[in-house]
Amino acid sequence: QDAAAGRQKAQMCAVCHGLDGIGRNPDVPNLAGDNAIYLRAQLHAFKSGERRHEQMSIIAQGLSEEDIADLTAWYSSLKITVEMPE
Amino acid sequence: QDAAAGRQKAQMCAVCHGLDGIGRNPDVPNLAGDNAIYLRAQLHAFKSGERRHEQMSIIAQGLSEEDIADLTAWYSSLKITVEMPE
Repeated sequence: QDAAAGRQKAQMCAVCHGLDGIGRNPDVPNLAGDNAIYLRAQLHAFKSGERRHEQMSIIAQGLSEEDIADLTAWYSSLKITVEMPE
Repeated sequence: QDAAAGRQKAQMCAVCHGLDGIGRNPDVPNLAGDNAIYLRAQLHAFKSGERRHEQMSIIAQGLSEEDIADLTAWYSSLKITVEMPE
């Protein structure tokens, strides 16, 4: 899988998920730094119908295995740091 | 909803999700900084069966609306920053 190719392909995802993997809408998860295995499992679930979402169920149908590998490589490659309140 | 109460209740979630909301296993998402609306929708989906997961479907059954409000307040209160590769 190829994070650089994933970065290109993520232009399509960026409107909701951001290129930086930070959700742009209240009903959208962050993807930044999520493990590629988890992300791939969700895209496969949307593709198979095991998980359903108005947009994601449609988008996932159009993704090849290579797209999924590249997109998950991109988002999982993003490093995140968390600030915990005292 | 009460993030401090959520922090206490999140001890139960921490084994997989971390108290800091960083997934501890490859098949576990990060929760840190996710919007409370998204997180609440997922817990409701696990509770209703609309979304299924071996552990989460069981755990969600035991959560009250107050638990859900507190837990989502905690995880959504965590500030995350993302480092983008050049």
